[in-house]
Amino acid sequence: MSEQQLQEYIQFTKGKVETFLHGYVTNLQAPSLLKESMLYSLTAGGKRLRPMLVFATLKALGHDEEKGLAAASAVEMIHTYSLIHDDLPSMDDDDLRRGKPTNHRVYGEATAILAGDALLTNSFQVIINDLEIKDEVKVKLLSELVKAAGAEGMIKGQVADMQGEQQHEHLTLQQLEDIHIHKTGKLLSFCVKAGAILGEATEEQLELLEKFSFNLGLAFQIQDDILDIEGSEEAIGKPVGSDTENEKTTYPLLLGMEAAKQKLHHHIQSSLDALKTTKLDTGLLEEICLYVAKRDR
Amino acid sequence: MSEQQLQEYIQFTKGKVETFLHGYVTNLQAPSLLKESMLYSLTAGGKRLRPMLVFATLKALGHDEEKGLAAASAVEMIHTYSLIHDDLPSMDDDDLRRGKPTNHRVYGEATAILAGDALLTNSFQVIINDLEIKDEVKVKLLSELVKAAGAEGMIKGQVADMQGEQQHEHLTLQQLEDIHIHKTGKLLSFCVKAGAILGEATEEQLELLEKFSFNLGLAFQIQDDILDIEGSEEAIGKPVGSDTENEKTTYPLLLGMEAAKQKLHHHIQSSLDALKTTKLDTGLLEEICLYVAKRDR
Repeated sequence: MSEQQLQEYIQFTKGKVETFLHGYVTNLQAPSLLKESMLYSLTAGGKRLRPMLVFATLKALGHDEEKGLAAASAVEMIHTYSLIHDDLPSMDDDDLRRGKPTNHRVYGEATAILAGDALLTNSFQVIINDLEIKDEVKVKLLSELVKAAGAEGMIKGQVADMQGEQQHEHLTLQQLEDIHIHKTGKLLSFCVKAGAILGEATEEQLELLEKFSFNLGLAFQIQDDILDIEGSEEAIGKPVGSDTENEKTTYPLLLGMEAAKQKLHHHIQSSLDALKTTKLDTGLLEEICLYVAKRDR
Repeated sequence: MSEQQLQEYIQFTKGKVETFLHGYVTNLQAPSLLKESMLYSLTAGGKRLRPMLVFATLKALGHDEEKGLAAASAVEMIHTYSLIHDDLPSMDDDDLRRGKPTNHRVYGEATAILAGDALLTNSFQVIINDLEIKDEVKVKLLSELVKAAGAEGMIKGQVADMQGEQQHEHLTLQQLEDIHIHKTGKLLSFCVKAGAILGEATEEQLELLEKFSFNLGLAFQIQDDILDIEGSEEAIGKPVGSDTENEKTTYPLLLGMEAAKQKLHHHIQSSLDALKTTKLDTGLLEEICLYVAKRDR
């Protein structure tokens, strides 16, 4: 698998998921203002890394990607809702997201909150409506989705992050790690798990895939912190150095840049090792892993 | 069934649901701030009308109420999340709810938004975790819950309500009705439907129960509008006349007080007729219906 092939796969994923989401939201019997606001953020670009992880895990297990379209789309809806709510004035108060005005800057706070609520609620419907998935499997997927996105997952991370920002000292490495594991890690891990559930992975394969996604999630976040210092404003779509300016605790701040890069390398290596041990056809997952380490946005 | 018995049933429902919700939230592996904020609004009183509808429908169908505890609790979580988000400064900007400071007045906007998000997400888990419900039935319940609460249900009503408030003219009766059917009616109807699904109602019974809950929902809202004019501030826990002050379109405003009361009576009668036609033991549902018409808060 080459980087060229990965780029093709990114386009494939984008096509599938964006077409699905556009159709799903357009067909809702809901006020056009709400649908517009939902679609504005759903189609605001993004790498579609999460859907790609669902697809690539299914592929590694020898299953058709199509099986994961509902789970991949649902997770993208949840990810999008979390971005809309995170950007609100009472949260991170961000004006720009991926180089475009944030949802509340375009539609106002009230509509942004409701669009987030709708994306969250209806993400479950996307999985429920998939006629190809057995009820037993649907319940398993929905259960994992709640764990990843809810009070014990992503929202826990978001609250901890907020509380961390309010304290005067920097976070410890353990606190920082705990925030990232929940705030971004759990949902990334859900993607791989969803692929594993739908692709009927064995217990052993599931365990290795979880090790893979756990390390990938941490690597992703370390690279995020590095990009905030070394990235280009044009590529990341927001001002460079905003973490430093906001006095956010980051890996480079706690460890120094060199050690942060070593830690990134360590987690990428652990991810790749886990993949190798599965003995599955994980070329694409490996390529995604390397992409996360090298990405410039 | 007497009013005395209804009061006992209200206490029974409160006990069951509040104990369940308190235990569920307390046991979450989540930051205490988040759990506190969730519990603050979950335990802020309220009539527990929605849970009671789940229980009473099960009872009418000859089933044990216990079967509906998960659905009843889930719906109360969704109702509570909707109140927290509705009260936010960018939405209705309310300082008081049931005579107590609103969630964001106590915990701040960011935590209030996240507590709402968590109540919504985790409400699904409450149903998923019930070991007594078959997967097939869980999927049906979750599907109905999304329809009732999501972009085509409660959120649709909320957006339409917001858009109505922004326009300079009063709403038409049809617009007003459409808002209420979605904003409050869908979730009330879900409760009866959940009871019907769990209580294995026949198609015919379900249809009549839906007619009952549809009319009950409208009656509920008309009485709400009447109470805003004729109620006592102490009983309703917020200033009387706030609808008039906020130039909200209400049934008394559109129809006049007399005709509004007649319309209330009409919907209550339709509810009772539908119940009667089921030939089930609907004494409790009838009592709830009369309670909605007579309630002072």
